[in-house]
Parts: sequence; structure tokens; C-alpha cells
Amino acid sequence: MLKINSDRFLQSLRDLSTIGATPEGGVTRYALTDIDWQAREWLKQQAASYGFTSHLDAAGNLFIYDPEIDVASPPVLVGSHVDTVPNGGRYDGALGVLAGLESLISLKEAGAPLARPVKLAVWTEEEGSRFRGGLVGSRAFIGEVPEVELNDTDAQGVTLAEALRQWGLQPEELPQVASKPGQVHAYVELHIEQGAKLDFANEQIGVVTGIVGIRRYDVVVMGQANHAGTTPMDMRRDALVAAAQMILAVEQTVKKSQYTEAVGTVGRINVEPGGVNVIPGKVEFSLEIRDLDIAAMDALSEQILQQLQEIALVRGVEVSFEHTAEVKPAPLAPAVQQIISSVAEDLGYSWRQMPSGAGHDAQHLARICPTGMIFVPSVKGISHSPQEFTPDEDCVRGANVLLNTILRLAGSL
Amino acid sequence: MLKINSDRFLQSLRDLSTIGATPEGGVTRYALTDIDWQAREWLKQQAASYGFTSHLDAAGNLFIYDPEIDVASPPVLVGSHVDTVPNGGRYDGALGVLAGLESLISLKEAGAPLARPVKLAVWTEEEGSRFRGGLVGSRAFIGEVPEVELNDTDAQGVTLAEALRQWGLQPEELPQVASKPGQVHAYVELHIEQGAKLDFANEQIGVVTGIVGIRRYDVVVMGQANHAGTTPMDMRRDALVAAAQMILAVEQTVKKSQYTEAVGTVGRINVEPGGVNVIPGKVEFSLEIRDLDIAAMDALSEQILQQLQEIALVRGVEVSFEHTAEVKPAPLAPAVQQIISSVAEDLGYSWRQMPSGAGHDAQHLARICPTGMIFVPSVKGISHSPQEFTPDEDCVRGANVLLNTILRLAGSL
Repeated sequence: MLKINSDRFLQSLRDLSTIGATPEGGVTRYALTDIDWQAREWLKQQAASYGFTSHLDAAGNLFIYDPEIDVASPPVLVGSHVDTVPNGGRYDGALGVLAGLESLISLKEAGAPLARPVKLAVWTEEEGSRFRGGLVGSRAFIGEVPEVELNDTDAQGVTLAEALRQWGLQPEELPQVASKPGQVHAYVELHIEQGAKLDFANEQIGVVTGIVGIRRYDVVVMGQANHAGTTPMDMRRDALVAAAQMILAVEQTVKKSQYTEAVGTVGRINVEPGGVNVIPGKVEFSLEIRDLDIAAMDALSEQILQQLQEIALVRGVEVSFEHTAEVKPAPLAPAVQQIISSVAEDLGYSWRQMPSGAGHDAQHLARICPTGMIFVPSVKGISHSPQEFTPDEDCVRGANVLLNTILRLAGSL
Repeated sequence: MLKINSDRFLQSLRDLSTIGATPEGGVTRYALTDIDWQAREWLKQQAASYGFTSHLDAAGNLFIYDPEIDVASPPVLVGSHVDTVPNGGRYDGALGVLAGLESLISLKEAGAPLARPVKLAVWTEEEGSRFRGGLVGSRAFIGEVPEVELNDTDAQGVTLAEALRQWGLQPEELPQVASKPGQVHAYVELHIEQGAKLDFANEQIGVVTGIVGIRRYDVVVMGQANHAGTTPMDMRRDALVAAAQMILAVEQTVKKSQYTEAVGTVGRINVEPGGVNVIPGKVEFSLEIRDLDIAAMDALSEQILQQLQEIALVRGVEVSFEHTAEVKPAPLAPAVQQIISSVAEDLGYSWRQMPSGAGHDAQHLARICPTGMIFVPSVKGISHSPQEFTPDEDCVRGANVLLNTILRLAGSL
């Protein structure tokens, strides 16, 4: 089995984490900012020093490849992103990009004669920390950034189109970026789990079965605001007590369901009028349901919304729902899962199949080519935080799995 | 039985409601502002036109009385306030002040020879809408505005001391304002109920037994913020789900207790980090308990805080409490209640005894003299709103009860 150069790879992880480093030990690199561009320039220099060629597409996606492999077949793509959430971790995105670069270098050094090109893709604005749509580069790559999204603004009022133009990119050429099924042979991405399943189970490699779907609602509960001193308990229509009962119902419905991987979360709540001495008259809260199976999402949403209506009825309040977001589940290719797990097996690493609860660029690539994802453990499941941590040995194991998966996907001549 | 002049009284209610009127039909009169002073100047003119004298104390409390009654006995005080909450109602405070003024006029017109003086008091900053301590004038009157409170600022950074000086008042003289037990014969205040008990029971007069005590806590629940997609339901320490269970426990504990008049309210809640896709790591919420009986307040707080700790234990989150406010219950004088109810009886009005769930200046006066309060119905219990409404007949009934209560308290020569 081919192995990466661990020292070189781990050094590159340390080097990239200094670009946009925060005092707390994290990293802040918003997409298409100076810091993001500094990270790309550093990657291009690294690539050039190994004889690789770089190019940017109209969405700012950076592609790096070996110009000496000039076979005309559709390429194997490997990638991830270098943009981060505010004060995020050093591994989210960076790990996949650097393991991809290290794989390219290792393949070149090994002189493996490949049947098809391998290209590293560094996708633009994965996190959505600057332009909230997120996954911008990978969506552009499959032709799914609507023209209207170019007018989305960041916190300073800069549009996505302006942010692209600042780096000499031509947003009007975005439609030409779009790849079609058949133009990419396969896509594979290494990423930290961002959950604690591998860490708690003490397993080394996650073979991702798919990326869960996400359904979001804004729930509004209308009761009657009133004086907290003069309104007896039995004359209240307290929107917050009703909402509290609903939040518990969300948890219990998901927990008691047959869908063991499903999750339901209320992350945001707002109460009006919000005085310590006023009975809440209106509560808005977010509701999010995720599962890999669309049928499970449908069944759970139906059960939950029905229960919320029943609680409202009993408590004499009104409840309404706005369906605010929907991301379809993205099952990953069984063939690629098969390759990843047999590579892990051959390398002697323990592995398990698992869904990805978080969104990734891979979910869009999955729509145009066979796609796989490799997870490595996140200690305590912490991510999007300076405390995000994956031990060196796990990073190296992940990169070795990536390298050998690419090798099998690209095939030898 | 003496009766007030209903037309004159109702006209004065309409006139005062134009000072600080809002487009929604409500009134905004913040304490010690131009609008508040305009209302006081209007009151002084009204008073002068009936031959009354006015004076202001250092706290801006306005006193109006008949200079021809020059007996030296401690006076009967009657009063309320003219400051309001933002976009408040036309009756809260104004009703008691104008019924007091109308009573003074009616007494003078009737030529009733009184055994002691009757003075109308218009207390400063009852609502706490500008300087959040609230009940400032009545507290100053009993010597309970600490010097440090003079540095409290309004939303524009103006201190209470500066706001008083703007009207030529001398805040350093506040300690001299303080009255001692024995210096006031009795205090009586007419007010809208601000609850729906009278309206729902179709009763005309509330004889207030006391003003409930208020105990407030800030409750903090610490769980573990985490990714809502990658953290399975059974690995979560969700601070909001725990808080939801606690909020339900507050309601259930109070409802199921033996204290039928007690109320418990969570009016404010804040969740961190507050993202739709992040499991809440921290929740803060307010907890308020009110009852007329301090023993009930103690028992309920103990039961509730204990249950909150048990919920935290089961859910693996931390809970902590900060006791942020305490207002002792203020029972009102049985002798004055007796006079009010017999006056109502003699006038042929239906009446019931009831506690006041809201705070009033009367709770401070109760500490230096026998004090009583008269309630009239609030339609649907709505107050602190442009929808606040009390029918004319109820306003007149309340004023008649006030007039005759004063007459009995002041006694005839």
C-alpha cells in the first residue's frame, strides 16, 4: 500500500493554520477575503514547487493538477475547502485540501502511471459564513448558483458578484463553469467527522453512507401577552409555556421514533414582549429535522407538526409553521464506499459506515458523479471552535485512505 | 351619600389623555419629561381654578389641597400617578389622580366641614419606564430612595438627579421629604384592576386586601453547544430542552399548589449560541413568583428551585439561580378595607375583596399609615396598552367610592 509523507503533510497542516490564526488558537478565513486569498496563494506556491499547475474557475474554485498527466479521460476529483466559520477549527476543510495535495505529491513521487487525471479542488465559500447560501463553489460547479444569489450581500453590504470581481473573476461566466454528469469520473473528500461517534466508539475511519437531508421550519406560537401579576394561572394563554411543551415534544418524538439516526433540534427562540413581568404573547422558534432517509424526514415532520398543533389546541394558543429550508438527503455511491472500506481494511485501520450529519460540498458533487467521503475522528465531537482537534495519527490515517482510494479510482495504466 | 360630578370628572379624564396621546389611542408620558410636566401644569391650573394650592416636594411629587382647611391634624392622602409606560393606557394612574381631584372639588362644593385636611398626591415615576427603579415618588415620600439611585440613568444617559434638577428640584433635599409614621392619617388610591377578575365576574368594585410580593430570579442553564447535524439525540446536553422542561415545571408547580392566588411566570429567555443548526449550550431565563403571603412565596420558590435542580441532574446540565429582585407583600389595612366595602355597599355597588397582582405606590404608603386601594374593572384585563379600557360608569363608581371613603377617613367636625 502506498503511504503519504506524514511529516510533510502534518507540517502543511500547521503552516496553513497560521493563515488567519486567532488568539484563541482557532482560524478565521472568510471566503474571498484577503486571508482566504492568502491561503490560496500559499497553496498555489506549494503546488508550483512540486511542478503542479493551478487554475481558478469563475466561482473562485481553485484546481491543482499534474500537467504531465495528460490523458483525456474525465478526472478523479479530490477536494474540500479552506474557508472557515468565525474562530473555527484548524481541521475543518483544511484537512481534506491538504490530504488531497499530499496525495497528488505522493502519487507523483511514486511515479504511479494513472489511467485518468487526478485534480485537487478547493471549493469557494463552503461554510456560508460570509455569504449565507454556503457551498457556493461546489454548487457553481454543478450549475446551481442562481443568478439572483450573486446579489447576496455580506455583513458589509458587498455582493457575491463584487467579492468575486475583486479577485479578477467573472461572475457572468458562472453558467459556463457548470459540469455535467460524465465530465467527472468520481469525487472523494476527506473530512473530520464533526461528531463524536468515531471518538466515542474508538474507531479510526468513517465510511460515509450519505449526507443527511435538512428540513427547517420557523414555528410561531401566538398566545396573549398580559400582566404577570394580575393574570391568574388559569386565565393565561402563555406562548412560552406552550412553546416549552412543543420543544419537549420535538425531542421526545425524535428519540422515541424508529429512526435511530434522525435528529431534531430547536436552536433559536425569541419571545415577545420579553419582559420579566409580562406573560409571553408570541414565541418564534426554529425547528430542524435531519435524516439520511427522506421518508423518515417526512414521517417525523408530520408527527411533530401534528403534535405541535395538538398542544396549541389544548393550550388555546395558535401555532403556525413556515417551511424555511430543505436540503435533500444525498446518498453516496455504494461503489466508492466499497473502495474506501476495502482500502481501510487493507491498511489495517478500524472503520465503520456512518451518515454525515453535516453538509459538505460532496453532497453536490454526488449529483454529477460517484462520490465518497472519508471521516476521521473529532475529539469529543467538537468542531467550528478553536477546540476542534483530531490527533496527528488520525489525520495521517485519513490521508492514507484518501491516497489509496484515489489510486483505485484513477486506476493504473 | 355624596356623589361626584360625573360629567366634569369624565371630561377631565378625556382632557388629560390628550397630553402625550399616541396615534394608536394610547398615552406616552415618561416621568419628569416635558409631557409629564405639561400634565402637572394642567393639573395645577385645574386645581387653581377651584381655589386649591399646589406644591412640589424634592422628588417632584405634586400635592394639591384646599388652603381653607387649615386644621393641624395629619392629612388623609389620596393619589396615584400620571406617568405611563410607552404607549400605555388612558386610565392607569390618571384615573386615581383625577378621581382624587374630583373628590377634593366635590368635598369643597358640598362644604363638608372636615376633621382633617385631604391632600391629593401625584407621585413621580411610578411605572419605572424612564428610571427603572419605579415607584420613585412614593419611595422618596417614605425615605426609601437611596442616594445611589440618583445616579441611575435613563436611555439617554440622563441621571435621575439631573432629571429632577431640570425642573428646579433639589435632589439633595430628598431625605427631608421622608414622612414618618403618624404624619399621614391614611392613604387611599383608586386604580384600574389591570387584571380580568372583576370584568369576568361582572363585579363593580374591588376592595384590595394587599399588594402581592414579587420575587425574581435569573436562571442559567449550561449544557453543551454542539453541531445539530452530527450529534445524536442521546449524546446531547441541550440547554434549551432542559430549560423547556423547567418552564413547564414552574407552571405545573404553581398551578398544582395550594396557593390559589399565586402566579409564576417566565417572561424572558435567551439562548446561546442561537443558531438554527447549533444545539443550545446556554439558556438564561427569568423566573418571577408573586403572592400576597410571604410563606407561600417561600414554599413555592423552594419547590421550584428544587425541581429545576432535579431536571438539571437528570439531563446532565448545570443550573444556577441569581435572586435578582424581592418586593415584600404589602397587606393593606383591614380598617380601611372595611370602610371601602361598607361605602360600596351603601352606594349599592357590587364588590369583592382581592389582592393586587401589580405593584402600586400604595404599597409604600402602607408602611407609614393605614392604606387602602379601590379597584374598578379593566375590560378583558388589558392594561399597559392603548386597548386599556374601563367604561365611564365604572370610572364614576370608583370615584364615588373614593369620595365617600375619604369623607369617612377625614371625618366631619
